[in-house]
Amino acid sequence: MSLNKEIPYKIYLEEKEMPKQWYNVRADMKTKPAPLLNPGTLKPMTAEELEGVFCQELVKQELDDTTAYFDIPDEILKFYKMYRPSPLVRAYCLEEKLQTPAKIYYKFEGNNTSGSHKLNSAIAQAYYAKNQGLKGVTTETGAGQWGTALSMACAYLGLDCQVYMVKVSYEQKPFRREVMRTYGAKVTPSPSDTTQVGRKILEENPGTTGSLGCAISEAVEAALNQEGYRYVLGSVLNQVLLHQSIIGLETKAALDKYDITPDIIIGCAGGGSNLGGLISPFMGEKLRGEKDYRFIAVEPASCPSLTNGVFAYDFCDTGMVCPMAKMYTLGHAFIPSANHAGGLRYHGMSSVLSQLYHDKMMEAVAVEQTSVFEAAEMFARVEGILPAPESSHAIRVAIDEAMKCKETGEEKTIVFGLTGTGYFDMVAYEKYNNGEMSDYIPTREDLQRGFDKIPKFPGNEF
Amino acid sequence: MSLNKEIPYKIYLEEKEMPKQWYNVRADMKTKPAPLLNPGTLKPMTAEELEGVFCQELVKQELDDTTAYFDIPDEILKFYKMYRPSPLVRAYCLEEKLQTPAKIYYKFEGNNTSGSHKLNSAIAQAYYAKNQGLKGVTTETGAGQWGTALSMACAYLGLDCQVYMVKVSYEQKPFRREVMRTYGAKVTPSPSDTTQVGRKILEENPGTTGSLGCAISEAVEAALNQEGYRYVLGSVLNQVLLHQSIIGLETKAALDKYDITPDIIIGCAGGGSNLGGLISPFMGEKLRGEKDYRFIAVEPASCPSLTNGVFAYDFCDTGMVCPMAKMYTLGHAFIPSANHAGGLRYHGMSSVLSQLYHDKMMEAVAVEQTSVFEAAEMFARVEGILPAPESSHAIRVAIDEAMKCKETGEEKTIVFGLTGTGYFDMVAYEKYNNGEMSDYIPTREDLQRGFDKIPKFPGNEF
Repeated sequence: MSLNKEIPYKIYLEEKEMPKQWYNVRADMKTKPAPLLNPGTLKPMTAEELEGVFCQELVKQELDDTTAYFDIPDEILKFYKMYRPSPLVRAYCLEEKLQTPAKIYYKFEGNNTSGSHKLNSAIAQAYYAKNQGLKGVTTETGAGQWGTALSMACAYLGLDCQVYMVKVSYEQKPFRREVMRTYGAKVTPSPSDTTQVGRKILEENPGTTGSLGCAISEAVEAALNQEGYRYVLGSVLNQVLLHQSIIGLETKAALDKYDITPDIIIGCAGGGSNLGGLISPFMGEKLRGEKDYRFIAVEPASCPSLTNGVFAYDFCDTGMVCPMAKMYTLGHAFIPSANHAGGLRYHGMSSVLSQLYHDKMMEAVAVEQTSVFEAAEMFARVEGILPAPESSHAIRVAIDEAMKCKETGEEKTIVFGLTGTGYFDMVAYEKYNNGEMSDYIPTREDLQRGFDKIPKFPGNEF
Repeated sequence: MSLNKEIPYKIYLEEKEMPKQWYNVRADMKTKPAPLLNPGTLKPMTAEELEGVFCQELVKQELDDTTAYFDIPDEILKFYKMYRPSPLVRAYCLEEKLQTPAKIYYKFEGNNTSGSHKLNSAIAQAYYAKNQGLKGVTTETGAGQWGTALSMACAYLGLDCQVYMVKVSYEQKPFRREVMRTYGAKVTPSPSDTTQVGRKILEENPGTTGSLGCAISEAVEAALNQEGYRYVLGSVLNQVLLHQSIIGLETKAALDKYDITPDIIIGCAGGGSNLGGLISPFMGEKLRGEKDYRFIAVEPASCPSLTNGVFAYDFCDTGMVCPMAKMYTLGHAFIPSANHAGGLRYHGMSSVLSQLYHDKMMEAVAVEQTSVFEAAEMFARVEGILPAPESSHAIRVAIDEAMKCKETGEEKTIVFGLTGTGYFDMVAYEKYNNGEMSDYIPTREDLQRGFDKIPKFPGNEF
């Protein structure tokens, strides 16, 4: 085996090399992502309207599509230093296993207790809430990755944290719940009797085990009903992509240090927080015409918003209490098949990424979950990290691209985002280990049912 | 808050600074640890006898108490590069929280999928087995930390891995079991009908949920009964401490880089693998009279082998199939109270550490588990890492020592080993979060029952 002696297995930036600003890719987009709409007036949401739900500073970031760089406050930089920089890893062992001439790198965001990149935005959102003098924040969580990240950030800053956790996860996946509780968060199974919308849902469906859409609705209501509280969200929003740009900025700094230029950059995409963050600075170069890269968004075949959705205004949540966003969507009523393991189950996609995809600045592929877990298992065995099911979507396509290089003999440089670890996803792995995992692709009819619920109004044809 | 600008939050060695040899502390000990005894003959175990159970090269390492340094084979160095060097972290946030003048550092071994330092020896033992042309290895595991590490190492080298997992853990803590299966290990709940000793135990106690002692007996029998198999063990043995010296060597290199000399070095101690590895190179300096350090072993009050045990020859396993070792022991029949959470439940202690403790080269303290989880929770909230219950014993005492510095105003430098993460220990955290955790200290009678079973023979008075 021949190793390139110059490039270590892991490239760590020094503390002083860490980025001190976030990068806002919207500043370099010629066609800006469409604004959020007020579903009542069909007019763009104003700062005033958004500030009822979100922190002021975050609303500013949400609406600003011209400022390219935002200073990262010192307190956030300090927190970042506890678990960042994350390593950019050269996948020597995977390359050897595949016998590919491709050079594969991954940016590993799983080395923190939240287990994923979510912490990058959680600390930012918690910081701005604290800075505004708020008492606490509310949010929803599915399996618990985002809720855990937010709990950690709030514990650090001494901010109250209220998490509405989808009931079925609360009961069947108690471990992330306990991590959140260890960090002092109040975790409520949703739907609950603590909110009007929760009580209504419970009345109508006494046996329901909840959904993310319902949990969002409860979290928003809880924020509105408590003095000194705001609602925070872990993906989809422009502000989240801004905070997550730290992933891409570190990746770029690490590559630059060794004069490496990637050919292909790959990330899994649910709401878009990781992919958007990873590709932002590279996309900026492409938008400014300085460099060219291939970007590949990888989504589950069972929830294929980019590859099978429509580009239209739709509600951000199932409960229709949030504003509408212009995005690739399967319809806010779309719910992935019950056999779908792990996250990446959001019906829509970040407006920023949707616009970039619409403008053909990036590609998207959908992959089936058994092939995803096959890639996950191979990766775990040769690279020594048990990946999250979400992250494994990116692994799948990175392997596929590396195998194409093997056929053609091309020495392409592939970078992918390894968003997190799968330690709390062992139920899905067990299913795979037992040969009980199957694939599901929504039928034309499934998709049509989702599309039918997308709001119809002039200008929203699709 | 004032930060020392010169020392980063995390000190990472560069790849080229990584140790290329293990250090064998026995070489510098004036009184060598007593040899393993054959319980039949009461004579020291010979290499030939040991080679029936262990790999040849490992037997050499086990018996060699004069060679100070062993080269780490290239293949192991390559594997180490996947997850090492581990960071030496300056606990700025913990210091600030405690308002202590002490400077606290921890060596964090949890950033790998096995979740602990166990991988350092697992890859070494698997490598020597592979190198000897063996087909596979057998071992036992309790909650699964060691079994996971060994599975990862075997998957990497293409070696068969058979793990006997204590039945109650196999059934009630299925997640680490699934990690092992994902790495291709064959995991058998113990006692099982696959071995003679297992069948005997099942016959005598049909409803038994197993014990570590029984699992060891099954794993040893399985190794002896299969052509091309050997048994491996994750702690206690001299060879394990040798491999784990990588922890201390990296720690020392990182400290030296910044001209830091620790005053106190703290580690949790079950069988001694982590503590022995962490302190080895520092202990070497102390043994050679070059420097002085305080070393503190921290053990659970419910399983206090150093602080309440006797220094005598005893069986290494409950089933009495293994050789006898001279060590601090509570008696091979001692089983910690059922309310004891997490690991550190071994009845004895590494012979090396036992001898050093006997020679007053290191101290030991026992701590109660509610105070351990209190420290764990505080640490998790301020340092952002959810620690394993085992590691939290060291955190407890590091905090206690830092608080003494606060009283006296001394700016001592404290280094402790953070052996791993608690992601698979959420049942214990849940108990703590719910206020249902209690303490237990064995009574005089409990201890006496254990001592009574220690073999009596001339020269083994205690």
